[in-house]
Parts: sequence; structure tokens; C-alpha cells
Amino acid sequence: MTYYIGDVIKDEKMLIARTPETFEKTGVTVKTRTGVEEIDSEKGTVRLDNGKHLPYDVLVMATGSKVFLPEIPGVHEEGVFKLKDLRDGINIKTYIKEQQCGSDKCRKAIILGAGFIAMEMCEAMRNLGLETSVVYRGDLPIKQWDDEFSKIVLKTLTENDVIFIPHKMPVAIEKRKNKPGLRLLTNDGEMDTDIIIIAMGVKANTLLAEQVGLKIGNTGAIMVDYSQRTSREEIYAVGDCCGVYHRIKQQWVHMPLGDIANKQGRVAGANIGGHAMTFPGIVGAQSFKVFDLEVAKSGIDEWEAEQFGFHPVSTIIWGTPSARSMSKGKKLGLKMVANKSTGKLLGAQAVGEGGAVTKINTLSACLWSGMNIDEIGYIDLAYSPPFGGAWDPIQIAAQELRKKL
Amino acid sequence: MTYYIGDVIKDEKMLIARTPETFEKTGVTVKTRTGVEEIDSEKGTVRLDNGKHLPYDVLVMATGSKVFLPEIPGVHEEGVFKLKDLRDGINIKTYIKEQQCGSDKCRKAIILGAGFIAMEMCEAMRNLGLETSVVYRGDLPIKQWDDEFSKIVLKTLTENDVIFIPHKMPVAIEKRKNKPGLRLLTNDGEMDTDIIIIAMGVKANTLLAEQVGLKIGNTGAIMVDYSQRTSREEIYAVGDCCGVYHRIKQQWVHMPLGDIANKQGRVAGANIGGHAMTFPGIVGAQSFKVFDLEVAKSGIDEWEAEQFGFHPVSTIIWGTPSARSMSKGKKLGLKMVANKSTGKLLGAQAVGEGGAVTKINTLSACLWSGMNIDEIGYIDLAYSPPFGGAWDPIQIAAQELRKKL
Repeated sequence: MTYYIGDVIKDEKMLIARTPETFEKTGVTVKTRTGVEEIDSEKGTVRLDNGKHLPYDVLVMATGSKVFLPEIPGVHEEGVFKLKDLRDGINIKTYIKEQQCGSDKCRKAIILGAGFIAMEMCEAMRNLGLETSVVYRGDLPIKQWDDEFSKIVLKTLTENDVIFIPHKMPVAIEKRKNKPGLRLLTNDGEMDTDIIIIAMGVKANTLLAEQVGLKIGNTGAIMVDYSQRTSREEIYAVGDCCGVYHRIKQQWVHMPLGDIANKQGRVAGANIGGHAMTFPGIVGAQSFKVFDLEVAKSGIDEWEAEQFGFHPVSTIIWGTPSARSMSKGKKLGLKMVANKSTGKLLGAQAVGEGGAVTKINTLSACLWSGMNIDEIGYIDLAYSPPFGGAWDPIQIAAQELRKKL
Repeated sequence: MTYYIGDVIKDEKMLIARTPETFEKTGVTVKTRTGVEEIDSEKGTVRLDNGKHLPYDVLVMATGSKVFLPEIPGVHEEGVFKLKDLRDGINIKTYIKEQQCGSDKCRKAIILGAGFIAMEMCEAMRNLGLETSVVYRGDLPIKQWDDEFSKIVLKTLTENDVIFIPHKMPVAIEKRKNKPGLRLLTNDGEMDTDIIIIAMGVKANTLLAEQVGLKIGNTGAIMVDYSQRTSREEIYAVGDCCGVYHRIKQQWVHMPLGDIANKQGRVAGANIGGHAMTFPGIVGAQSFKVFDLEVAKSGIDEWEAEQFGFHPVSTIIWGTPSARSMSKGKKLGLKMVANKSTGKLLGAQAVGEGGAVTKINTLSACLWSGMNIDEIGYIDLAYSPPFGGAWDPIQIAAQELRKKL
């Protein structure tokens, strides 16, 4: 008998309503609303929050991530939300709706953080009709992307009436006196708001792992091997709680993304089921949508390349997502980074009203197999006028970059 | 002094209006409306159709392709058109417009052939309001694709009121008696029409090449090496007139496509200019649009794989171009073919109202670097809900196919 224990999602009926049925057919017991308090690796048991003990031969840690909350007073006030799971989304929507039905409507939202989850929240808040501000300590949103592309994202925010406030850090959150709502105190003045959403990133949830003595990597995530085994042979870890091998950095990293978690789950499952399998790692492909803009990247940027001992060169070109005559003025920005000594592609980024994700997917395949800029400049793509020019932006960027090698 | 000689496009002002200016700045003379009658490779001269001789040290053959015309009576009647260059397009539009202004309107079009150029013509004719029929000797359109996908294309044709007539071959074309218009005689009855468009493919234009004794490949195209040199060291060939190396077939083929011609031109130019460069070949990526449908392929299909000594296995899956919740019922079909003995990807095809071309572009990069199905099943792509599921159709198809290895 295998047990799946919901230690994170204890009380959200919606989320797990259909899961038990699915598993029952396969002879698997799902214990919902059940937390694990402790793992006894000597006895091979887990102690549940109802006091019972469950035995295991093989244990899979899928404890996910924890949101990063700033250490400031008032972070747990009513009206301050984190972003972790579906329940948070429901809570936020319910709060806004209830406030809007009341005499004092929820009109203003502040988002703390400016990563891609924060950007997605901007769109969600604007769609709910809220006056939305992003409060961020840095200059520009999405700092993992090139400044030139961050500026495009900033422009999109502005065009959609999102107020981006740079160089500002939260110091405390207070309930407003004599009226509903919140006050955000910062290093540079105060702001009144009705809701605050914290989107400042996540970290691996390693509480149980540490307690049972599993090795934790430099990235703060559980160390695993290519088979998803932890430092204890009988314990596997998958998803946001563990590390993943980055093929370009040639190093284990923490990248808590849903597609990676899915792959790791399958790999662990195959190995537990007796089919030896390894997870080949990632190249760092990721994307998000903010209003009409697609933003994507893969591999590493120049500053990371330098950090990892490469000698990076880069170029940014501006093309069109489809053939010029058919792209209705839409533009696509594409950045490529290569290693000067080998000519190999190290990373790519793209921003545009269309085409950014798919360009990055093709370049992810190039990164995956370690292709160099010469090859990419002449790679065979499915050209047809409605879908692009005879020279794809990928080829143009690679040829531009070739000149810098 | 380098000369560029327009031997194909002699009389279309529109086409070459801006070209001479562009070249003049770089000290290049462009002779438009000038044909080459003969090449004298011993003297190193070309004889022009105005009787003059031009000397050369290096000669580039870019003579393009010739349309394939069926050997039937009446193929040159007024109202019968081939598809080769912009002039043909203008001629067709002018003919339809003039006919439509007259007392007997141009109402009916017949397209001979059912390849992707024929499909594009269906859309063009329907957009001009013509009753459009496709006459084809085979069962289904676009025979280079899997029958399952050809059927999707057929459905799209039918939904857009294009009549597809299979198992029919043209025997003769006649002017209609006593009234304007044409009559198409076939192996199975007659059809009246106002315009006939022949889209039965092209072959390499090797007239001058053969005359000067250049080696012609089995494909009927000029033989070149990886530097675009022909069998004579001082003569290069680029574009539709010459062959190209197919990395999956591991053989030289004739694939007259615009993006390949562009690449070959650059490679020849680099070599002539003293920068040694080789053209790394193609994987057979191609695409077209017919009404709202995207159709694309890369690599080789099963029947070709068998022909080339592989042991192919294949799978077709149906997914969505974006995340299921956001794809509004649109479907994407993806076929993958792999070699059973090595697990390497051999080819891919896709059909859908969106996403087909970009999936094939990513898979072209996989084909380019010889990736196997195991890797593709776990390749890192830029996942985000608006753009797709946590498992991309590419990964799903690869994992399905993996089971057949």
C-alpha cells in the first residue's frame, strides 16, 4: 500500500476533491487534511498530526516551497496575502469581492516584488478593476531579464495603468486607524491601500528533510541525484523542495517551476517502480505573460555567464513575430548570449506581443544540445511568409552575435 | 566589377525597381532585362541575349526552378497560369479582375495539383470570391504529410467551400466554344472553368548548367559541395537550381525553398569573398498556411524512413496549441517518427489552428542535433499556463513514441 499525504494542503476541499477517487482505483490511499509531523528514518515511519504512525519502505518528499515573507511588522495583518497555492488565489478573490460588496470598496492593491509572479498579479488585479501599484527595491521589474527588456515590461505596466514604484522597500504594514484598509510604511514614505500581495519569491520547504538529516544543497533545496534520490537511498525528493541540475551552469540549482516538478515526479516514480531512469536536467527555460506581452528566457544571461567563468558576448535584435507584412507593427526583441571561447550558445531572452515563448523554446532545444552560434545562424526552420521572414530572428541574432566572437 | 544578371525576370519592373540602386552603392552593376544565352567556361565569358559577352572569374548560377507543366494540349491557352514568380501572381490577379469587369465574370477556378502551393492558391482564389476546385490524381491533398493530417486539410478546404476532386487527371485544356472560358478534359469527364492554375511542382532550371557541362545530381538539380561550388571550381550554384544536403536522409536532395536559397547565397558569397564557409544542410523544415490552418513538417515520414534504411516507429497525438483552459477548443495534431534501433528522432509533422509551425521549429532544432526520443520527452521548454500545459505536446508525443522503441 502506498500513501500520499497532503501535508501542505490540509483544508482546501476544492483542491483535492477528485484526487482520492482517482487514486482509489489504483489501490492507493490518499490521506487528505493530514500533516506529517516527523519522519523516523530508523524505524521507517512517519508520525502524522493525528498522532498515528505510518510505515514506509520508500518515502517521497514533495513538500514544495514556502513563500518568502519580509521580516516586517504587520505581515500577517488581514488584507495581506501571500501567493503559494490555489487557496491563496481563492482567498484573495473572496477578500476583494467581500470588500467590494461592503460600504468601503477594495479599490487599491499594492504588490510587493517585481518578479514574474508579481507581473502576473498586476494583470489579475487590473482585471479586477483595482488601482495597482508595484513596490520594488530595484530599478526595473523582472531583473532576471536584460534591462532593455525590463523597460518594455515597465512600458506595458504603465500602458495598463499599473504604477511601478522603484527604490522602495517595505518597513511595516499597519491597519489604518478609524477606517478600513491598510497602510504600508516604507523607507521612503507611507502608502494607503486596501490589499497587499507579497510576491517576493519562494524558497524550498525543507523542514522535514532537515529534521531527518537529509543533505541540503547550497541553494537551500534538498540535494538529490539524477534519479531524484536524496542522501538517504530510500528517500526521494521531487519538485520545488529539491534541487535540479542546470545543464548550462553545470551546477545544481533551485528552480521551483511546475514543469520541472512534473518531470522529477515521473523520474522518481520510474525509479521506485524498478525502471532505472535519470532526469537529464534543465536549461532554465521559463516564460510568463503580462497583459499582451510574452516574456521568456532560457539558459543564462551575461552577468550569470561571467559568474560561472564563461567569457560572454551578447546581442539584442528587434524583429517581428511573423512576416513583416503580416505582423501589424508587432515587435519581437531577442537577446542571445554566447561563450566567446567556444562559440556555444549560453542563453537567450525574448519579449514581444507574440512569438517570444516559441523562439525561446526553439533556442532551448539548441541550448539543450550545446549548439554553437554558427550552427544556429543557419539552422533549418519551417519558413513560410505568414509565419516569418526567410531569415528568422533566431538566425539573424545568431549571425549578429557571430561577429562578436 | 561583379555583374548580376537577371535572366529569369526580364520584364517585370516592379520586381527589380529598387535593386539596381541598392547595388550601385556597392559598386555592383545589375543588368536587368538581360538573359544569358550561353556560358563559355573555357574563355570565362557569358554571352548575353543582346549579343554582348561579359567576362568572369567567378560565376554564380542562381537560375532557380522551372514549373512542371503537364504534357497535355492547351496548357498554354489564355486563362491557364503557372506559378513561378511575382509576375505570375500579378498576371493572375489582372486576368481575374479584367474578366470580372467584363460581361462574363471570372467565377470558377480549377487548381491542378494538391501540394502546399496549391493549398495556398485555394485560399487566394476563395478570397477573390471564385468557386474553387482542386483536381488531383491522388486520394488526399498534401501527400507528403500523414493521411490523418491530409484529412484535416481536406476538412478545412471543404469548410471553406473548396471542392476537392480526387482521382482525376487532366488530359487536355480547350477554349470553350461560342463563349468565353475554358474546358478541362480529364480521364473522367469534363469540367468548365474560367481560370486554370497549374501548381504541380517545380524542377531545377539546369539548362545553362547542363550546357556548360556541370554535373547534375540524381535529383535533377546542379550538384554542389558544402561550399556551394559546382563540379567546376570557379562556378558556384545557389538556390532552387542546385541540390542541398539533407542531414536526416544523409543524402543530397532537391528542396526548392526560399530560406534555403537565402542561406546558400550567403555561403557562396562568403567563399567567393575569401571567407571559407560551409552550408551545414537542412533537416527538411517547411510549413504553409491554408485558411486558418497551420501545417508544418520537418525531417522524414515513415515511408521515407523505410526507403532510407531506417526502422521507423511513429505516433500521432492530439493536444492544444496553448493551455487547455485557454485554447478555445483549438486542437493541435503532432506526429513524431523515430528510428527503433537508435531511438533518434527522424521526423515530425504538425497540423492545427495555431502552434504547428512553432512546434516543428523546436523539433527541427532537435532533429538538427540528432536528439533521441528519451531526451525530447524531458527537454526543458518555457512552460507557463497561458502558453501550454506543464507537459508540452512535444514531450507527450516523445514519451508515447518511447513506448514503441
